[in-house]
This record gives sequence, C-alpha cells and structure tokens, in this order.
Amino acid sequence: MIVNNSLDEVKKRESALKIIKSIMSDNGRFGLYDVTGLSGAFLASENDLNLLETYVGPAIFEDELQIYGKEHLGGEKLLGVNRTSSGILATILALVEEGSNVSHFLAEFPAHPSIPRSCKLVGASYNEYVDIDKFKILDNTSLVVITGATMDHKVISESLFRKVVEIAHSKNIPVLVDDASGARLRTAIFDQKKAIELGADLVVTSTDKLMLGPRGGLMAGREDLINQVKLKATQFGLEAQPPLILAMVNGLKEYKKDNLVKAFSRKEEFFKLLSSKYSFFKLSPTGVMIKEEDLADDIKERNIESDLSVKDFAFLFAMVLLKEEGIITIPAVGMPGASATIRFDLSTQDVVDIDLDVLIKKIDDSFNIFLNLIDDVDSAKKLILG
Amino acid sequence: MIVNNSLDEVKKRESALKIIKSIMSDNGRFGLYDVTGLSGAFLASENDLNLLETYVGPAIFEDELQIYGKEHLGGEKLLGVNRTSSGILATILALVEEGSNVSHFLAEFPAHPSIPRSCKLVGASYNEYVDIDKFKILDNTSLVVITGATMDHKVISESLFRKVVEIAHSKNIPVLVDDASGARLRTAIFDQKKAIELGADLVVTSTDKLMLGPRGGLMAGREDLINQVKLKATQFGLEAQPPLILAMVNGLKEYKKDNLVKAFSRKEEFFKLLSSKYSFFKLSPTGVMIKEEDLADDIKERNIESDLSVKDFAFLFAMVLLKEEGIITIPAVGMPGASATIRFDLSTQDVVDIDLDVLIKKIDDSFNIFLNLIDDVDSAKKLILG
Repeated sequence: MIVNNSLDEVKKRESALKIIKSIMSDNGRFGLYDVTGLSGAFLASENDLNLLETYVGPAIFEDELQIYGKEHLGGEKLLGVNRTSSGILATILALVEEGSNVSHFLAEFPAHPSIPRSCKLVGASYNEYVDIDKFKILDNTSLVVITGATMDHKVISESLFRKVVEIAHSKNIPVLVDDASGARLRTAIFDQKKAIELGADLVVTSTDKLMLGPRGGLMAGREDLINQVKLKATQFGLEAQPPLILAMVNGLKEYKKDNLVKAFSRKEEFFKLLSSKYSFFKLSPTGVMIKEEDLADDIKERNIESDLSVKDFAFLFAMVLLKEEGIITIPAVGMPGASATIRFDLSTQDVVDIDLDVLIKKIDDSFNIFLNLIDDVDSAKKLILG
Repeated sequence: MIVNNSLDEVKKRESALKIIKSIMSDNGRFGLYDVTGLSGAFLASENDLNLLETYVGPAIFEDELQIYGKEHLGGEKLLGVNRTSSGILATILALVEEGSNVSHFLAEFPAHPSIPRSCKLVGASYNEYVDIDKFKILDNTSLVVITGATMDHKVISESLFRKVVEIAHSKNIPVLVDDASGARLRTAIFDQKKAIELGADLVVTSTDKLMLGPRGGLMAGREDLINQVKLKATQFGLEAQPPLILAMVNGLKEYKKDNLVKAFSRKEEFFKLLSSKYSFFKLSPTGVMIKEEDLADDIKERNIESDLSVKDFAFLFAMVLLKEEGIITIPAVGMPGASATIRFDLSTQDVVDIDLDVLIKKIDDSFNIFLNLIDDVDSAKKLILG
C-alpha cells in the first residue's frame, strides 16, 4: 500500500503539481490535457486585461454581458453573480418574505442545498416535489423554483416545465429557474427552449458548466425583478466582480451549441472504442470514467502480483497519465479526500477537438506503462509520492 | 447648458469611452493615467493565466494566499471573499445567533451599512458606539466589531482598539475588525500594529483599497473561526473565485508600505504646488480634488462669458484632461448620477511614481485648453457629448 493517509495524499498532490509545472515550462499549456471538467475557463486578451484595470473597463464588460447574456438566456436584463448559489440567495433575499412558502419542482431528488438553505435563512417554509400530481402551491407562496437539469444531468421535460410555470402564474407567483447546466444541456442536447421562453421570470446558470466561462453565475429575466435581485446582491457582496464578468463575456462569445452536441455524441463513440479493449470504462454525463474497483478487478484478472491497494491502482494510473501524457485527472491532483474515480470529460476545451484515436493512444501507452509499474512498488511509490 | 439629463450623461460617458479606446489603440495602456482611485488592479502573468485554467491552478493560488496574506494580516489562516461585505456577512452567519447582540465600535459615524444589515438578516440586535465611555457589551452578545479606519480614513487609536478588545475578551466574545483600508492605512501611515497583533480574532480588508489588488475581501484570524466562516461562505457563494485569488496574491506581492507612505507624503506637496497657481484644489484622503462649485467660482472671477452650468465646467475640464492627456477622472467616465468632483488619487498605480511636475504640466496644459473652450459652446458640446 502506497497512499495510507491524508499526509500521503498531500505528497501525491505536490508530486503532481511539480510534474505540471515542469510540463508547463517545457511545453507550455499545450502539453497539458485537463479533462477533470472542473476547471473554470478564463479567456482574456491582453487588451481585455488592460481595460480591466481602468475605471471604465468593468462598465464596458457589463454592457457586453447584457448583449451576449441576452443571446444566451433571453430576458430583459442580465446580472452576473459570484456563483449560482449567490444568485439563488440574492433572489430569495429579494422576493421571499419571512413566513411565506417556496415550492420547488425538479426532475429527481436531491435538490441543490442552496435553495432550502437560503429559504431557511429568511425564515420561509420550503417544499420540494418530483411528481407533478403531488405538486402543490400553498397559500402565501412567494416564489416557485424549477430545476432545469439536476447535477447528474437529469432533465425536466418541456411539458412539465410549462405546466409548473402555468400553475405558478395562475396564482401570480414568480418563477425562478435553476438552470445551472440546464441552460445549455436542455437547449443544445435536448432541443428544448430557453427557460425564459418557457415562461420563467428569472433564470440562473453556471458559467463554468458545459461552457468556457469562469466559475460564476449568470442571471436573466424581468427587469423589475433583476433590479430587486441586483440590489440585494450588491448589499451583501453576492455580485460577480469585473474579472469574472470579463471571463463570462468571453465564455459566452465562445459558446457554440454544436461543440456541445459534438462532445455529447463523441462520448458514446469514445466509450465504444475504449470498451472494445478495456473492461473498466463507464459512461459519465460528459465523457467516460474509471471507478477504482473496476480497475482493481481488471488487475486481479491479469494475475499480477501487487502490494498496491485498490485506490493505489487508480492513483498510479492517474499519475502515469499525467507524467507520460500530460493528462490531468482528479486522482492525481485532487485534495486529500477527493474521489479516486478517473474521469475523462470530453467537453473541456483541451480535448473538445482532439482526434479520439490520438487520445486513446495516450491512454493505451499510459496503461502499458502502468501495468509494468504495478509490481515495481519502489518506482510506483516514487512516482506517486515524489 | 450642455449636460441636461441622464441621457446626456450617458452620451458623455460613451464619448469618454471612445476616447479611451482610441488612446489604448494608439499608445496602449501607458497613454492612460487612471487617477479615479476606484479601479481594481488585476496583476497576472501569462503563466498565471495559463495555470488559472487548469484544475490545480486555483489550489496553487490558495496556497500562496496563505503565505502572502499571513505576511500582510497575520493570523493562523486566510480566506479570500468576494467583497469585504461578503466576509462580514459570512462571519455574522457563522458566529451570530438569532436574538443575540452585536456591539460595534468605530472612530466616527456612520458605520458601513453591511454590518447592521447582516445582523438584521440573522435576527440579531445591533448597537454602535464612537465614545468609549458609552461603549457597552450587553448580555448575550455574540460578536464585537471594530472598524479600523472609516471610509473617510478616520482611524481609531491603538489604545482604544486594545481597550475594546480587552472588554470583549474579558467576556469571551470574539472580535471582528473591519479593516477595509485600515489594514494598510493604520500600519503604514499611522504606524499602528496589525489588527491580529492588537488582539482581534478575525480581520477583513479590501484588496482594492490602498493596494494593487482586485475588488475583493481578504480575511485572516483564528483557524477555528476562519473554518466556520469559510463553511458559510462556501454554502452561500460568498467566497472569492480563483481569478480574484490570483489577483489578490499578486497585489499582496506588490504591496510596499513605502509606496503608500510616499503617496501620502506626496499629496501634501502636490496640493501646495497646485495651490500656488489655482484657487480650486482641496486635499482629499489620497490626493487632491476639485469640487465643481470651486471651479465655477474661479471662472466667475475671470469674467469669462459662458452658457455652461456649474457641472458642465467640471465635465468639460474632465473631458479635456482625458482627451489631451489621457487622465481618467470620474466626471468624464462616470455613470449617470456620478459625482462631478474631479479627484486625482496619487496612490494609484498609474501615478505612484510619476514626477509631480510632469503631472502638474499636464493639468496646466489641459486647464489652458479648457479656458479657451468655455466660451466656445459648440466645440465644448462636441467634446462632451461626442
């Protein structure tokens, strides 16, 4: 066993950081393939950065956010927030009174915790529903929330979406849509309409999910409501700062529905090609993944003697992928306690256009080196712990 | 009268933006002198930006924030927040229970509204004091707040600071210091100790005030308290995102106490030199300023006929400063409703090292052109409204 505790995990991460820095200085950013799917983009030209530092730069990016954000989400007015959770809090601070009710409809449990948490903060009662026949709007309800797509990419149907909006509007209650990944997943992959087109009064999306923006939230909707939300956001420090707004604008400019469709179609092909050679790949929402126990089962069937633990196998394979091919995955670089699942996200900028055969060759070559290291504990240890 | 309403102010701002863009494309950023004192810095190397986009970049900047933040503020652990107000909200969410009391001591009224506002949100009672003899900590108090320096740069004395901490600690109540500009003003200019050294349990500072960081907040303090604050910050989307953390680290690296001392000493000299020629300059906390009525009085004494309003004079002078010399001030570029006071902040990056005679020559030349435009309404109008 190589990685025994949190301290070893810290060493592993430090060892991975060293490898990344060395690849960066030898080959630059092009030598790295970040397929974690968890890295926010920060697209900015030199001119952008120069403008950013002047008093007027932020105002210019704000104006552009109105234009490109409207194209993406619709609505009368746009608002950049620090995170999707910040936008949800600002909305609930602005629209939900103490003692009132909030109803939330989503495709499947569990709901994102930021919604019940913000309701609790203002002293509102919160109820959530996945079954339209049981969906209820109590008296004294101040807000109805719809989740467009859950964290596991489960999408609500357009007809259910419209139905919930209709019930809410028949009682004059505004509808907020949490469309974190849904604003793109629903429209690009499931051919649905924008939340605003389906009747939502407010919508919030995560600019780092399925697009090349920074971690942050973008809101759109009725101007009167956005103004109320913006006031609360500014009062409590929930709004997006200028560097984020700049990166949101550039992420929106770069967003192409077709790229997303391509990534989603390529993951099936990628999975098929890999599964013809390996037993341990599984489909993930945005690509493929290897669970550590599936990798360990494969090693067992190969009858290779090894002192490594089930997690060690995943750590070792991830470190080989990084060292030999510059492929960044979570088990190599994650903080202590991070998952040992090796995920390959095909929608990330680094691989969205890569030839799948090239990527598979990199995985093949790494896997062969990995196999040779399994019974060479000293070398494996050196690679993992530095 | 040239600027009659908000629409004219919008036109003025657009005209100023065009001039800025044209200077940027002709002479680059070096052709501009942003003396508004309101622009956040965003220092980042190409390597930083490349790292920023990888999964591990943010973790690397977080590690650096611990090192450079500790040097700046002291404390066991650091936390980047989206704004100083966000840090105050996160602290109050973490430490202040419903129904408890919060006491706030500051050098003079008014207090920053984020403190009473956050108390109200969690249902706590809030009291503020400027007189130590009247300062009270009621039973069931959960937090004591000290403001290190007010928005107008009024600083609390070290002995009062220590006294409030002592009273709070004698009752086992944690102390949060809102040291937005104070973390630098108190230490660099007034030779005081860091808030943590004076006994504070938590401190928050604004990384865009008197240093070259982005708009954002940096917290430091006892590890157990920071961990509680961080949990609330993460839950409600109050934490600083990776681009901000990166710019905070670089701002902290660039911070030199001596530069600040220099800017503060230079403002007196700057004021003296200008006042030997002009009647309308006043000292400001970080440089000099021209109030529109003082400028108008000067024009009146010169007996120049003009159809311009009192505010028009300030707008016109600000536009000449921008067009002729690239000097950015608020009356030229401000949003509708912004102040018509022309401020020259000497602590901003663009002029911190400039020869004062060079800067004064630019002001002289602009003022002469301005005088010639006062009775040429058509040209003045063209310059202001585009």
